[in-house]
Amino acid sequence: MPAAKKNGQQTVWFQNPPVIVATATIVGAKEGQGPLGHTFDKVVEDGYYGEKTWERGERRMLAEVMQTAVSRANLQPQNIDFLLAGDLLNQIISANFTARDLGIPFIGLYGACSTMYESMALGAMLIDGGYAENVLVGVSSHNSTAERQYRYPTEQGVQRPLHAQWTVTGAAAAVLSRQGTGPVITHATIGKVIDLGQGDPNDMGAAMAPAAADTMARHLADTARQPEYYDLFVTGDLGVYGRELALQLMRQKGYDISTRFNDCGVMIFSPEQDAHAGGSGCACSGVVTCGYLLQEVRAGRLKRFFGLGTGALLSPVSTMQGETVPGIAHGVVIEGR
Amino acid sequence: MPAAKKNGQQTVWFQNPPVIVATATIVGAKEGQGPLGHTFDKVVEDGYYGEKTWERGERRMLAEVMQTAVSRANLQPQNIDFLLAGDLLNQIISANFTARDLGIPFIGLYGACSTMYESMALGAMLIDGGYAENVLVGVSSHNSTAERQYRYPTEQGVQRPLHAQWTVTGAAAAVLSRQGTGPVITHATIGKVIDLGQGDPNDMGAAMAPAAADTMARHLADTARQPEYYDLFVTGDLGVYGRELALQLMRQKGYDISTRFNDCGVMIFSPEQDAHAGGSGCACSGVVTCGYLLQEVRAGRLKRFFGLGTGALLSPVSTMQGETVPGIAHGVVIEGR
Repeated sequence: MPAAKKNGQQTVWFQNPPVIVATATIVGAKEGQGPLGHTFDKVVEDGYYGEKTWERGERRMLAEVMQTAVSRANLQPQNIDFLLAGDLLNQIISANFTARDLGIPFIGLYGACSTMYESMALGAMLIDGGYAENVLVGVSSHNSTAERQYRYPTEQGVQRPLHAQWTVTGAAAAVLSRQGTGPVITHATIGKVIDLGQGDPNDMGAAMAPAAADTMARHLADTARQPEYYDLFVTGDLGVYGRELALQLMRQKGYDISTRFNDCGVMIFSPEQDAHAGGSGCACSGVVTCGYLLQEVRAGRLKRFFGLGTGALLSPVSTMQGETVPGIAHGVVIEGR
Repeated sequence: MPAAKKNGQQTVWFQNPPVIVATATIVGAKEGQGPLGHTFDKVVEDGYYGEKTWERGERRMLAEVMQTAVSRANLQPQNIDFLLAGDLLNQIISANFTARDLGIPFIGLYGACSTMYESMALGAMLIDGGYAENVLVGVSSHNSTAERQYRYPTEQGVQRPLHAQWTVTGAAAAVLSRQGTGPVITHATIGKVIDLGQGDPNDMGAAMAPAAADTMARHLADTARQPEYYDLFVTGDLGVYGRELALQLMRQKGYDISTRFNDCGVMIFSPEQDAHAGGSGCACSGVVTCGYLLQEVRAGRLKRFFGLGTGALLSPVSTMQGETVPGIAHGVVIEGR
């Protein structure tokens, strides 16, 4: 078997690219009203989703997309070798409890908002490496559970700065398989934690943009490709300002991606929706990738894109202790087949 | 290439077993005074480890063991393909900030106290699968950072019930390599999240024992081996009562492992040390495995063992919302070579 990664590089390539055989998405009301509202499987108007707490509502969304994705793949949970999942809540409780209910061997991940792409990258390695036939990946986030955990009590109604982003309420799941039909994952680039000293926990786009640019540039260098090779570079949740900063950083690295660069956080809300700098959260890149982007690939309108999950490694404790907010970005290449 | 895992099984086997070429451990004062004190590389008397906060002290321990392990492997951080790490703190800040400082492509994990074995299992798959030459894995925990996050403000001095465990202060790291000399990882069994309805957040051993028994029994069934094949089954941090419960559950499943079963949480403290039911925390299985157990394997006194990291998927939020505490256990087979 040829080496799947060259020494000193961050990009692995898949000899037998794993297939994304099924996906599922759920979003909240605000996301349903956005420009991509029609691309999601289900829009839930009630933030509690019929449960007693927001946390249970979030978990119900995650469980539902996972069950839907498995069912669409014509599989049962017992046919899934590994579940790779995570979320933003402390101790990733949404993922843990969902894993319990599904009964699939579980690998818990924490990559902040990069977790969807972290799970796709790892899941693809487990399949191509010979350890799995089918892997289920998924993430969730919820505006109300995240805001009160990361920022202020919800009841306080704190005014948000204009550069703040809006945590997306929703969940996304995908089944990756060794065989089947659908878009394939051809490469994965695992990112480094990058910290340019940004310390404002409300400005996550600026915290993540250097990591996004680092992973994109590294991917292009590792693969000896030019930006034109891809129809699109799409980051998870840099938002309006983070996207601009990533573009500038890419120019400094010698790459102009301005004609082919978008961000799920920018795409998911319209400016009139008062989401300020755009969407964020694990579900932001999750639902846009498993919804709109993969639909475009399946329809042939998007041939090949490099998608990145972007994570602000933010913690209320570290912020209160005066630490900066480092960022990370993991990317995978998704191609139509 | 033959399949590295059979459908419906949870155990993968490695065609070219990755080698544990180097390890490093640091512990706090209490752990240093325990029966295994002489097996750790360094004992730190000061809980702050010279830093301003316990969190920074914990992080310093994690960074130090990682640097020591890499250096003992005669490598530089740039020779490491992936860093797989996690800890108990919200948003795994110990691992994130250490990953930033080391500059190694980073895959963040959360498996509660099972994280050391989760990272070894995944790291071995990434090497044997052809994606990495060298992988650095590591975990940390700290009694003072964990207690105040999971339970009560430290200043409150709450009396602990006798079935409670004591979170180990320390950090452990290992370098896994495709080539080299040292003990090897021949199999990994990824666990399911198991919940028998235990709801007391102070009784983590009971919460984790069913998962430990499930993974051990599953491993034996998958490999068609009898308990006698192993010199030792060793769990991460079931403690005195959890260990007893796991033994009983194994008997129910038809396996008697009573003559060859120990628990890192039981081993690390002596009864006189007032640690109640034993040690816990990511570092508990981390330092006992990377310290005592691997030293025994290198010395030939232990030929082959099945080690398991055990995680109580405990969260203050889920506990306050009336949820139970599910458990998970991931295991790897380590053999002397």
